[in-house]
Amino acid sequence: MAEQVKLISSFGSTFSHRAEVALRLKGVSYELVLEDLRNKSQLLLEHNPVHKKVPVLLHGDRPAICESLVIAEYVDEVFAGPPLLPADPHGRATARFWANFIDEKCMKSLWAALWMEPGEAQRKSMAEAKRSLTLLQERLGDRRFFGGDSLGLVDIAASGLAHWLGVMEEISGVTVVTDEEFPALRRWAKRYVDVDDVKQCLPKRDELVTMFSAYKEMFRAMAMATPQQ
Amino acid sequence: MAEQVKLISSFGSTFSHRAEVALRLKGVSYELVLEDLRNKSQLLLEHNPVHKKVPVLLHGDRPAICESLVIAEYVDEVFAGPPLLPADPHGRATARFWANFIDEKCMKSLWAALWMEPGEAQRKSMAEAKRSLTLLQERLGDRRFFGGDSLGLVDIAASGLAHWLGVMEEISGVTVVTDEEFPALRRWAKRYVDVDDVKQCLPKRDELVTMFSAYKEMFRAMAMATPQQ
Repeated sequence: MAEQVKLISSFGSTFSHRAEVALRLKGVSYELVLEDLRNKSQLLLEHNPVHKKVPVLLHGDRPAICESLVIAEYVDEVFAGPPLLPADPHGRATARFWANFIDEKCMKSLWAALWMEPGEAQRKSMAEAKRSLTLLQERLGDRRFFGGDSLGLVDIAASGLAHWLGVMEEISGVTVVTDEEFPALRRWAKRYVDVDDVKQCLPKRDELVTMFSAYKEMFRAMAMATPQQ
Repeated sequence: MAEQVKLISSFGSTFSHRAEVALRLKGVSYELVLEDLRNKSQLLLEHNPVHKKVPVLLHGDRPAICESLVIAEYVDEVFAGPPLLPADPHGRATARFWANFIDEKCMKSLWAALWMEPGEAQRKSMAEAKRSLTLLQERLGDRRFFGGDSLGLVDIAASGLAHWLGVMEEISGVTVVTDEEFPALRRWAKRYVDVDDVKQCLPKRDELVTMFSAYKEMFRAMAMATPQQ
């Protein structure tokens, strides 16, 4: 009998989505445990005492595995099904590089550009986001997916650019990834959300809008309450 | 005949050191190309157009591989020699988790705590650094190395805590990792710099002191020149 797989997740988290898509693409049956991050469970605190964050993967009785990209690589290595990383070491290194690039360069600047009050800092974030997304789009080139013909680690890492970005753009009233400036990324985003395994675990759009509208208010209130350094 | 391996590096970079140690531990012959980061070479700009940073690994005529931990994993996968990551997927995931933890949680807060002018922000960084280093020390436990009996990915990731930290502490006049508070990390650091492959590629201490003293001045001048946001 296959060992039990449990994913501690939270509604609307792009990081949780990454882990869940990895499991679905590999055809793994799993139990989803949805956390309320305002009131974290003992299960989460016990299994991710370091970061106290989702996603957390529990596989059989092994110690928990944390962090979305670490989980995705683990799922790829341990379960059968279509590979999420290339077989050759050079292809694997390239995938890891671009997955990190998305986290370090694209997402941070993009969310800052969308969430911050207009001003010099917001303009800088926007410029950085556009520079990084241009590089990412060049990397995609004419491929269907970053992984080639089918989804791989980099597509999973980039999932926030597909379903979440439009929600954030709607809330902030700012559009970054336009058809004119980022046509290949826009086509990729449509293809991504159209993959069956992805569709089955995308949060509902209107619920995302409600959640992130509240987050944005909190974010701005916190930014205003933080002393200047 | 083995394909040529070239490492684009810079003097005193902990990230370059990680890549170089990985190559040495695997017994790979390589050519070291030392960059002057104030005047980056065409070679560097051509092979790492995305980040324009060292280290960059060139292996035969393949496209370059960038980022120290990505390079370390590549080197581990492609060359024979003692493994830098465990063979089992769970052990590999755990190593990746802690290597990321060192970058995201330990190093950033530690360097900030040592380099910033005394004040509220510096005290916060210090508190975060100590919290993170305490978790890292617990992870090390009674092991000789994070990798067990011999060096692995996490030890390589943590190398800044061994040879570099003392230099930074000397320059800043602040000691964070004391024998009293972090005895296991201190013992690990001594073991790390005592490994032959490591010793052969450690930058000279007095040259590091000179370099980082100049950097500290630049860092503080830049911090003072940056408008408050």
